[in-house]
Amino acid sequence: MRTEAAWPLDDRGVAYGDGLFETILLRGGRPLLWDEHLARLARGCHRLGIPMPEEHDLAVPLAEAGNGLEVLKLTLTRGSGGRGYRPPFSCAPRLRWQLAAFVPAETRWQQGVRVRHCRLRLGLQPVLAGLKHLNRLENVLARAEWDDEDIAEGLLCDSDGRLVEATAMNLFWRRAGRLETPRLDRCGVAGALRAALMERMEIHEVDIHPDEFEAAEAVWLGNSVQGVWPVVRLDDGAGIERRRWLLSPLHRTFQAEAHRLLDYPAP
Amino acid sequence: MRTEAAWPLDDRGVAYGDGLFETILLRGGRPLLWDEHLARLARGCHRLGIPMPEEHDLAVPLAEAGNGLEVLKLTLTRGSGGRGYRPPFSCAPRLRWQLAAFVPAETRWQQGVRVRHCRLRLGLQPVLAGLKHLNRLENVLARAEWDDEDIAEGLLCDSDGRLVEATAMNLFWRRAGRLETPRLDRCGVAGALRAALMERMEIHEVDIHPDEFEAAEAVWLGNSVQGVWPVVRLDDGAGIERRRWLLSPLHRTFQAEAHRLLDYPAP
Repeated sequence: MRTEAAWPLDDRGVAYGDGLFETILLRGGRPLLWDEHLARLARGCHRLGIPMPEEHDLAVPLAEAGNGLEVLKLTLTRGSGGRGYRPPFSCAPRLRWQLAAFVPAETRWQQGVRVRHCRLRLGLQPVLAGLKHLNRLENVLARAEWDDEDIAEGLLCDSDGRLVEATAMNLFWRRAGRLETPRLDRCGVAGALRAALMERMEIHEVDIHPDEFEAAEAVWLGNSVQGVWPVVRLDDGAGIERRRWLLSPLHRTFQAEAHRLLDYPAP
Repeated sequence: MRTEAAWPLDDRGVAYGDGLFETILLRGGRPLLWDEHLARLARGCHRLGIPMPEEHDLAVPLAEAGNGLEVLKLTLTRGSGGRGYRPPFSCAPRLRWQLAAFVPAETRWQQGVRVRHCRLRLGLQPVLAGLKHLNRLENVLARAEWDDEDIAEGLLCDSDGRLVEATAMNLFWRRAGRLETPRLDRCGVAGALRAALMERMEIHEVDIHPDEFEAAEAVWLGNSVQGVWPVVRLDDGAGIERRRWLLSPLHRTFQAEAHRLLDYPAP
């Protein structure tokens, strides 16, 4: 892993999680879904009142990338300063990056994954909804709910019981012939792959509870690094099986569309 | 300001706000409400699954303190490692500290303060409620709602409209002769001063909406660094006055009790 300098002790990123990040797939130094990542970062900057970095500063690590598949993590904080929680009047944002080799989980593309419901419920916070900000304790605690390697992801509901996302992936399904995904205007992270897919296909944003969701004909998880995993089994929070789905050509069509955007093969 | 080393780039404190902090008043190197701070830190460690540091490690910075009044900020993170959000199986927590000279706002003790309602509402998250964790974007955004120096604090409601706290202080009031404070089991930070006062006085934890709260006979804000400020005026989120309170001996009694715990004078 190649990295830049560390974070100063008084950086607001550590102190308050006062910042944003993006995790970007690189292929020979070429970022995939770069526009979608930049658009989300810009939205986050606007919402938090942090100046958006210049695109050429964001692109600096691309020149450091190797030939293979890598993941670039960009972290942007409000920098140092301010009095307590109060943001400094004029802030000097701090941008850091990390680059690491990456191998996608091809078996999960092909065979699909088993997931479970998490017990933790996401708090409602419309002001932060959709952003990839640095306040991610909910995701950490949800991901800590299981350590069975056979379970690939955990599904999260909000405090009103609506399905939102998985701990690190967005959720998509087909129901009555329609592609759907949860609305993310109260909590959750609006993924770059989700944004790109919604630009290109008719995917309906809906409010849905876990019971209704089980009527889905096919379910997928996806993000801009891992691509798309079909969901073949869903357990409840206690590990008891709730539903199985058989892999079908339906799964492959959606996967192929998503994987085209990431230059991944159609499984 | 004297500090230790910086945060490594891959520390989970920056990445996810995966950690806790305590802000402690020191008088000639002697920490005030040390037991209450340690108790809250231990509760946070337990809730997040981070090993609690040894007390002698936590006390290291005390030896570095000067003669006067200082604030010690202790920050504890889960350290580095793990796969994405997933916490590492055995974590090596990282403890850092900052020490800074401090002068309390004596005028606010004496004359009281003007506060306002914040528009931002705190999301409900019982798992994190009460803890002083590093996910503090809500506080940052709430504090960014005003920049009028005459307004000392902003009051926060949760997403169900119940009063919770101020951005960096706990809220107390007297109503029908009873001392009350909001319940903090769904969100908010349970202050060390609040804990110490509740040990020593009869303070009732209640669910309350802003309208009912305006019936209070006296209102205070307090924390373990600033002591206690009487609230003399409350504005709404648009800056329009909602209520005034006259300073009375009632205010002084509660302040005196709190200030005794911090070795501050009774105003």
